[in-house]
Amino acid sequence: MRKHSGLNYTMLCDFYELTMGNGYLKAGIGDRITYFDLFFRTIPDNGGYAVAAGLEQAIDYIENLHFTEEDIAYLRGRGLFCEEFLNYLRNFRFTGDIWSVPEGTPVFPREPILIVRAPAIQAQLIETFLLLTINHQTLIATKASRISRVADGRAVLEFGSRRAQGADAAILGARAAYIGGCLGTACTISDQLYGVNAAGTMAHSWVQMFPSQYEAFRTYCEVYPNNVVLLVDTYDTLRSGIPDAIRAFNDVLKPKGIKKCGIRLDSGDLTYLTKRARAMLDEAGWTECRITCSNSLDEYLIKDLLQQGAKIDSFGVGERLITSRSSPVFDGVYKLCAVEEDGEIVPRIKISENVTKVTNPHYKKLYRFYDRDSGMAQADYITLWNETVDDTREITIYDPDATWKQKTMTNFIARPLLVPIFKGGKLVYEKPALEDIQKYCRDQLATLWPELLRLENPHIYYVDLSDSLLKIKNDLLNARN
Amino acid sequence: MRKHSGLNYTMLCDFYELTMGNGYLKAGIGDRITYFDLFFRTIPDNGGYAVAAGLEQAIDYIENLHFTEEDIAYLRGRGLFCEEFLNYLRNFRFTGDIWSVPEGTPVFPREPILIVRAPAIQAQLIETFLLLTINHQTLIATKASRISRVADGRAVLEFGSRRAQGADAAILGARAAYIGGCLGTACTISDQLYGVNAAGTMAHSWVQMFPSQYEAFRTYCEVYPNNVVLLVDTYDTLRSGIPDAIRAFNDVLKPKGIKKCGIRLDSGDLTYLTKRARAMLDEAGWTECRITCSNSLDEYLIKDLLQQGAKIDSFGVGERLITSRSSPVFDGVYKLCAVEEDGEIVPRIKISENVTKVTNPHYKKLYRFYDRDSGMAQADYITLWNETVDDTREITIYDPDATWKQKTMTNFIARPLLVPIFKGGKLVYEKPALEDIQKYCRDQLATLWPELLRLENPHIYYVDLSDSLLKIKNDLLNARN
Repeated sequence: MRKHSGLNYTMLCDFYELTMGNGYLKAGIGDRITYFDLFFRTIPDNGGYAVAAGLEQAIDYIENLHFTEEDIAYLRGRGLFCEEFLNYLRNFRFTGDIWSVPEGTPVFPREPILIVRAPAIQAQLIETFLLLTINHQTLIATKASRISRVADGRAVLEFGSRRAQGADAAILGARAAYIGGCLGTACTISDQLYGVNAAGTMAHSWVQMFPSQYEAFRTYCEVYPNNVVLLVDTYDTLRSGIPDAIRAFNDVLKPKGIKKCGIRLDSGDLTYLTKRARAMLDEAGWTECRITCSNSLDEYLIKDLLQQGAKIDSFGVGERLITSRSSPVFDGVYKLCAVEEDGEIVPRIKISENVTKVTNPHYKKLYRFYDRDSGMAQADYITLWNETVDDTREITIYDPDATWKQKTMTNFIARPLLVPIFKGGKLVYEKPALEDIQKYCRDQLATLWPELLRLENPHIYYVDLSDSLLKIKNDLLNARN
Repeated sequence: MRKHSGLNYTMLCDFYELTMGNGYLKAGIGDRITYFDLFFRTIPDNGGYAVAAGLEQAIDYIENLHFTEEDIAYLRGRGLFCEEFLNYLRNFRFTGDIWSVPEGTPVFPREPILIVRAPAIQAQLIETFLLLTINHQTLIATKASRISRVADGRAVLEFGSRRAQGADAAILGARAAYIGGCLGTACTISDQLYGVNAAGTMAHSWVQMFPSQYEAFRTYCEVYPNNVVLLVDTYDTLRSGIPDAIRAFNDVLKPKGIKKCGIRLDSGDLTYLTKRARAMLDEAGWTECRITCSNSLDEYLIKDLLQQGAKIDSFGVGERLITSRSSPVFDGVYKLCAVEEDGEIVPRIKISENVTKVTNPHYKKLYRFYDRDSGMAQADYITLWNETVDDTREITIYDPDATWKQKTMTNFIARPLLVPIFKGGKLVYEKPALEDIQKYCRDQLATLWPELLRLENPHIYYVDLSDSLLKIKNDLLNARN
């Protein structure tokens, strides 16, 4: 499989990461060990969970990190950087540690989903690309998960390349959509590079290229008798589209004994049209003909269509998935939470006029508590790096926003969510196959209560800090006042 | 300058373009000359105009078009394509013609902004990537234009890489934002590759890395005395941020006689804080200290801030620009409008249950009419390819939606908007420098009436069809009934 990776994105950094790096070096703290948390604050579409994705591209990026002589010449030309720093960049590679939740993990606001421990200059430089890849793919995987859940077992295909925000958004958006539950994509290169099953048959132009719609349909059936999905809305769906399709099925597929085929509708009142189409197809004996719909769909429209009894077997979802149109930003951030001084880990906090922007300090671990009997996820629990959770004892967990709401956990299993990815700059993680990530995601979503999976007004999942961590946070907050 | 291009995106196509291509070949119409229009239907954010962008990447794509042996092996493995087609792909290159509006041109719904004339298989295959690059960059250039206009002469910097939808969205989004009027970007590689001026100084982590905020500020001033923008909201903007900044300015910059410097605010009530900050800085004698604000800005917030008298000299605009958050999809489409049969150009139409999805048939030209006296743009006018507009005679133009509204044009100059890009597969267009595109955009926007440039409820610009073209469209519509 050809790799889209191998591209060197080292210079895809915010310029301030370079000015800070040069400054750290001049201040003699460039090699100081720092700890950064990557976390997010809000779930897109006011949903109950997000689906983490983008780690594989973060790994590729870290493994390819280096500055070329061209890069260094460009930076020298900016007149801001000392030669010592430019020399440092010449030998630059990542030597730190990274932990992350695996792709496909359901994740929640304000918990670290990726942690970096590295010398200051390195940890700072990788900020932009780590955020970019995790923010983008988590956004799309989350949207795809919402849409797939609403489709309720029907196939959802990602159709949005042409409206994606750039080539990567198309290619990797299709990958993320697959993680979140899509069955495939229209984007050929995403299949070739990442194994996201790509499919497609015809556009309106095919129909327009022939002297008649019937001839267009018949020709298609002749060329691809086992891969027929006829687009029936070029001229008039009910008056000519379906009748011409049935005639082509009868003339070409029937003699071959082929019963599997399909039609696609891309405009009009999909509920009305698919009910009529289904009736016409059934009456003509084409009961196995599947109906696919596209045309600006998302989870809200799909829910409506199905509630109205539309007869749809699969959905092609375009722009509203590939851009997550109703909520197109995933707000992951990357914040310094500790530095090492004389071998000791010293916590750091960022306070803010906006209360939700105050960070959780220190080097951490993240646990998910599952009920021993039902296997259902109950809460996530953030501790100091050197704390151990004793899941044979009871623990009281607080609602992250309304701390007067609490529940006491007994009979639970505590599973660490963050796994080692890099140790001392060396990759120690075996990247799972894409279909395994999709399956892991599906299995993990099955451990979330239905109240959390709701499209609208979901419950809020508990993410709590351990007592020791909370005390350190409060001490740091109070010290500032 | 290193090229981000050279990447081969040939396989970034919708799979149906390949099944149709193979089908055209088998049906003996693969080499039939076809005409496709690229146009859009709605302007993002209900604005009055869009700014065309993305052509340079479309050109790079076309010049790099080819299938590798790996690509062909992948396609063979799909079991749908005949060997004749795979052989055809082995020698595939683009041999057709492309016309386009130059980047930076203000454009309007339902007019062709790019036209392809090419053999069917070729014209079909390039659909996805052409749409993707034009849709993406036009979206961002349009948003940047809105934001820059509202900022009313103040600098707008693109800060959104970390929230972009993938690497290309960051890199090329910064390029498009520059075309639309941004002064620069935080994205280093966009400067290196495209010459979009990149800038930046510090994040909150810089402040947190030092024993005190004052030491962080002082160190920064020492390292970069001529490039100082201190981020003052890590702990408390008014109580410590501004005072520490002033102290650092006094201790480091003042002795050097440096008066130019800056601060940045990234949270809180920006109107209140910048008014107080301005007063404190002025009182301390730092009247030349510039105030930059960031934090989830867009054209609506910037308008509010300025109306409230916020003291802001420049804006850093992140996620809401780089994703065009309030309107994240540009709905460009690519539709067959004619085919050649026996040397004659035969128009094609796509009808639809959705009236706005009916296409304008035939091979076309696009004119913009400017008033001879004022130089202002009055209307756009779509004609048949072989029509000539006689701008010494009067022409009556109709409102595109309400055709009972009309105006009679006299005293105007008709300028063709579409310029030749490829002829017979050969590039015949000299790509302009990026700053020239930005300037061209600014100059062209100056020809639009203020009523059209309004943020909300703008006038609708007239885009009309010539009588000959309208007659052909109506004949085709009537022939279907």
